[in-house]
Amino acid sequence: MIIVMRHDASAKQIAEVVARVESHGLRVNISRGEERTIIGVIGDDRPIDRTQFELLDGVEKTVPILKPFKLASRDMHPPDSLVPLDGMKVGGPQIALIAGPCSVESREQILESAFAVKAAGAVALRGGAFKPRTSPYSFQGLGEKGLELLAEAREATGLPIVTEAMSPEQVPLVARYADVIQIGARNMQNYALLNSVGEAGRTVLLKRGMMSTIEELLMSAEYIMAQGNSRVILCERGIRTFERYTRNTTDINAVPVLKQMTHLPVILDPSHGTGKWEYVTAVARAGIAAGADGLIIEVHPRPEEALSDGAQSLRPDKFAQLVTEVRRIAEAVGRG
Amino acid sequence: MIIVMRHDASAKQIAEVVARVESHGLRVNISRGEERTIIGVIGDDRPIDRTQFELLDGVEKTVPILKPFKLASRDMHPPDSLVPLDGMKVGGPQIALIAGPCSVESREQILESAFAVKAAGAVALRGGAFKPRTSPYSFQGLGEKGLELLAEAREATGLPIVTEAMSPEQVPLVARYADVIQIGARNMQNYALLNSVGEAGRTVLLKRGMMSTIEELLMSAEYIMAQGNSRVILCERGIRTFERYTRNTTDINAVPVLKQMTHLPVILDPSHGTGKWEYVTAVARAGIAAGADGLIIEVHPRPEEALSDGAQSLRPDKFAQLVTEVRRIAEAVGRG
Amino acid sequence: MIIVMRHDASAKQIAEVVARVESHGLRVNISRGEERTIIGVIGDDRPIDRTQFELLDGVEKTVPILKPFKLASRDMHPPDSLVPLDGMKVGGPQIALIAGPCSVESREQILESAFAVKAAGAVALRGGAFKPRTSPYSFQGLGEKGLELLAEAREATGLPIVTEAMSPEQVPLVARYADVIQIGARNMQNYALLNSVGEAGRTVLLKRGMMSTIEELLMSAEYIMAQGNSRVILCERGIRTFERYTRNTTDINAVPVLKQMTHLPVILDPSHGTGKWEYVTAVARAGIAAGADGLIIEVHPRPEEALSDGAQSLRPDKFAQLVTEVRRIAEAVGRG
Amino acid sequence: MIIVMRHDASAKQIAEVVARVESHGLRVNISRGEERTIIGVIGDDRPIDRTQFELLDGVEKTVPILKPFKLASRDMHPPDSLVPLDGMKVGGPQIALIAGPCSVESREQILESAFAVKAAGAVALRGGAFKPRTSPYSFQGLGEKGLELLAEAREATGLPIVTEAMSPEQVPLVARYADVIQIGARNMQNYALLNSVGEAGRTVLLKRGMMSTIEELLMSAEYIMAQGNSRVILCERGIRTFERYTRNTTDINAVPVLKQMTHLPVILDPSHGTGKWEYVTAVARAGIAAGADGLIIEVHPRPEEALSDGAQSLRPDKFAQLVTEVRRIAEAVGRG
Repeated sequence: MIIVMRHDASAKQIAEVVARVESHGLRVNISRGEERTIIGVIGDDRPIDRTQFELLDGVEKTVPILKPFKLASRDMHPPDSLVPLDGMKVGGPQIALIAGPCSVESREQILESAFAVKAAGAVALRGGAFKPRTSPYSFQGLGEKGLELLAEAREATGLPIVTEAMSPEQVPLVARYADVIQIGARNMQNYALLNSVGEAGRTVLLKRGMMSTIEELLMSAEYIMAQGNSRVILCERGIRTFERYTRNTTDINAVPVLKQMTHLPVILDPSHGTGKWEYVTAVARAGIAAGADGLIIEVHPRPEEALSDGAQSLRPDKFAQLVTEVRRIAEAVGRG
Repeated sequence: MIIVMRHDASAKQIAEVVARVESHGLRVNISRGEERTIIGVIGDDRPIDRTQFELLDGVEKTVPILKPFKLASRDMHPPDSLVPLDGMKVGGPQIALIAGPCSVESREQILESAFAVKAAGAVALRGGAFKPRTSPYSFQGLGEKGLELLAEAREATGLPIVTEAMSPEQVPLVARYADVIQIGARNMQNYALLNSVGEAGRTVLLKRGMMSTIEELLMSAEYIMAQGNSRVILCERGIRTFERYTRNTTDINAVPVLKQMTHLPVILDPSHGTGKWEYVTAVARAGIAAGADGLIIEVHPRPEEALSDGAQSLRPDKFAQLVTEVRRIAEAVGRG
Repeated sequence: MIIVMRHDASAKQIAEVVARVESHGLRVNISRGEERTIIGVIGDDRPIDRTQFELLDGVEKTVPILKPFKLASRDMHPPDSLVPLDGMKVGGPQIALIAGPCSVESREQILESAFAVKAAGAVALRGGAFKPRTSPYSFQGLGEKGLELLAEAREATGLPIVTEAMSPEQVPLVARYADVIQIGARNMQNYALLNSVGEAGRTVLLKRGMMSTIEELLMSAEYIMAQGNSRVILCERGIRTFERYTRNTTDINAVPVLKQMTHLPVILDPSHGTGKWEYVTAVARAGIAAGADGLIIEVHPRPEEALSDGAQSLRPDKFAQLVTEVRRIAEAVGRG
Repeated sequence: MIIVMRHDASAKQIAEVVARVESHGLRVNISRGEERTIIGVIGDDRPIDRTQFELLDGVEKTVPILKPFKLASRDMHPPDSLVPLDGMKVGGPQIALIAGPCSVESREQILESAFAVKAAGAVALRGGAFKPRTSPYSFQGLGEKGLELLAEAREATGLPIVTEAMSPEQVPLVARYADVIQIGARNMQNYALLNSVGEAGRTVLLKRGMMSTIEELLMSAEYIMAQGNSRVILCERGIRTFERYTRNTTDINAVPVLKQMTHLPVILDPSHGTGKWEYVTAVARAGIAAGADGLIIEVHPRPEEALSDGAQSLRPDKFAQLVTEVRRIAEAVGRG
């Protein structure tokens, strides 16, 4: 970290800051500018709360220099990490297409969805059994019954299952059924849950919070990895901005930024990113063009009857069309 | 809800929308304008996902008319709800001042803090035993040991205790020690946790998420109330915006807006709202001037040694000064 | 518009609202729901300030139904508008690549840039002579001298010129030199300037303000078109959000949304959208994949010497690589 | 500025950065940390575009140390600047209340407004003759006729006039009539206009842009001051955020932050800050409690007939009530 002193800081104040730095076993470099003196801290200062220094007399501000994440950083692990998903490797040349309904609603609906997305080219089936809903009066998911139906769909189609866990106590149950445990956007900073899936030994699909920075997403991945689980797939799913014509604003910049900062695979969720089915295919193409390793798409056999997120769900024929278009983009960027 | 048809919607499409509305047991009112036909839905349509209608052919958009929350709404419960806190009633004429350190760090620190905030006029002691931290490498709180120290501080000072629970399985433990269970901003939409504190029968201090609208805050209160627990205190603690000079942007508008929309008490957290101790007192005064029922303030005997949030913590003497200034504002708005 | 009455509105209040609507020569449709009465206004109510109704006793809120823009709307003009730019038509199948330095800095720099971007495949040259800079102490552009150098570059390369006007009095001067007058993001709602370029009879490149909604962008286009100038090219250039790792957040959703809402051509500026050259090519590919009609890219022969925006400028060889990659995407979406 | 090298930067890369810094006549301080080398630049580097350094090989990022504004900074001018407004001094102990309608609509309306706000205690009359409106089809103001009516109202009441100029060519005209020229939020970064009012020798009321940072507001003040005009009053009027229940989010934090960073007076506009008259008084109280030097309030004799901003305009009796309540707060913070 760098400690910037106020323009009127005294020699005594500077000495006290230096003494405080050294009391942590770190060293300093002092740079006296024309308007400000700057104290550079030498050594790993990440475990120390920077604000401790900001409160010392004569200090104007501190600036972090080291990135706060390690395990997720490409600095520490330059090659791409490949996360196995059934036969394929997410993060490798092949694009991972995960698709299915927002919620598991019935045996018929999930089986119909599973066969449809498989036929179109999906490599995994998504579907929520536990649903985080803004209103307590909305459909909350089928719970364990939904997990059983997902397992039945896997048996019938061979597709691995991606489904969400909403609290630590659900994790063991979800892990019994799921191939990939999803952490939803609202839970990206639910640290008890992150620790819990870190310990569960299942691949984790970690969605970015709707108002979380890219760095915070990586810090949440770091929580999971710090428990020894490095099979983490990151998912950009749109952030909340002042623009309300779309449900969220897909942060397409985050795709190349994440690919540069981390070795973990990065996929895009254009269904939540836009919130309207008309725009899903265009933004799906954009995601692959920007370098995403895959897509997660909401598909429902009859969106107008969906119990949640119908507005952003594609019908199976539209999804098949999306797959065709995305494949052309994938080829144009040299991927399969 | 109102269903707005596209300008080129056909009579057949309109008829199909009407049939769909009626299939839910609701009635319609049709208004044919010069450019658009509008279908008004008559009856309580809140349990139905509006997007089901948006997907029908010829529909341009839907507009909700009814507010999505009921128990929290002032429409349903016009008088102010008063939430008892030790001897006082939060939401009544007296201002509730809750203060203490971000985290419980040691026996000495919490006792010193408790005596200091009590001397200055606080009516409750805050302090975190379980801490949600962005980084897995930061101090995570003392856990149950912290709760024991809080109980000791209560015994010593008589101040009731406000402390956070981060996951459903922590709730029974926290409820054994706490007078008020805090739901932190990152957990405002952790629905498993909301249900859990709804059942725990303790007063809940519900902080607005940094990414959450005023309406979503009320929906989260609704989750707790729907479990039969109506002792909920709402807390505005700053939202995330493009402005980064301060840690968050205190949404002062939210104070009069919430007081109008809901009967629940509303307090302000200027410590998180600003993130810098220099601005806490000014914004605390603003909160009371705007009509808040109380304040929650971070106070630490030695902020420069705090393990978390030191930068926004007041020293006890500054807190005493804040109390004096806030009292003058409270009198100016006719409160004690 | 729809006027929603409060749940306790009286018959007299409803009658007064109706009378007020009718006093404007409009008609009403009244829908009495179980909780609320709703008054639909029939006729073109766009010239009336909706808030006049919101202030009447018993009114809860109003909801606009008609889109506030007409000339820019696809409802009124379903086919794509094609805007001629030298030999090509922006908005047609061919992708328009506009490139060049942020600022014109010297004769040598602009000529070198112009030949380089032409060689790589650009169809127009961008370069600022008048520069809006956050600081009064930063380089403000060469002014008319810059325009002369742009004209010389056009003569030398045959490329049409895109350059910014910052105030109404600059418009006649800029129009003498420019083929396309750019309205910068900070001036998107500078209405005097919009009117002025509306009258100038030159093609206008209108950049979205960093703080402006998609609808506001279309309203600003409407200002220009209302002056009789329909040769308007819209440009998404990133919006300001809480994410600060990139300079702006490219709103990729805006591309398909705008293509649906308006007949005007839409191009993307990934240089400002990201603010860092490393991400420009990835986001440029994404823009074309999402359906943009073109790109505007900052290219500088020696970015490390640029007087403005060097960090987001590509070297000519990187730009040539971008063109190659973008062409592959254009083909994948069926464009040239 | 501080230049942070990549963790793998070579000695040669470091030497090249140093040479580049020295080529600008500046000196360096080099700090070799365990993971990163940091180069501190000594001397005034503000005229240099930092990005020039970010593009050199081996550089990870740069961090500014000096504040980019000088004339507006309290570092350079510690005491409060007092701006004369008729008999009073804005920025001194007395609170400045500026009030009046959004737009001048008629002789009767502006005179009635002027007498009403004077009677309630306002020290200046606001009213727009040139109106920036989102839609070209909305009322655009009476133009010069409006200025004449404002002058008549001044003559009748003795109140000085605050009114907006929207473009440089309007400035001489507006300056003939106005005591204070307002720069509206949409024009905060209209640099041609800022230069123009900088030269006009009239007091300027500079409103913060709805998506401009506090620092950018100060940079815009710097533009005006760099032209020799230091009579600048800053105005916080709400920023655009994801919260849309209110028209804008009043950034109450900005009040104490600005008072600390600059010597210029700071006033609050709760009318635009909230957009709804019901909340104006509460937020006005909050502004004064937070330390604002004044308020600017929209008042209209019949808001339901206003041609603009009726929803956020107070009736004269509500304004008189506001003044009474604000006075009590002013006394509570030791002001008149």
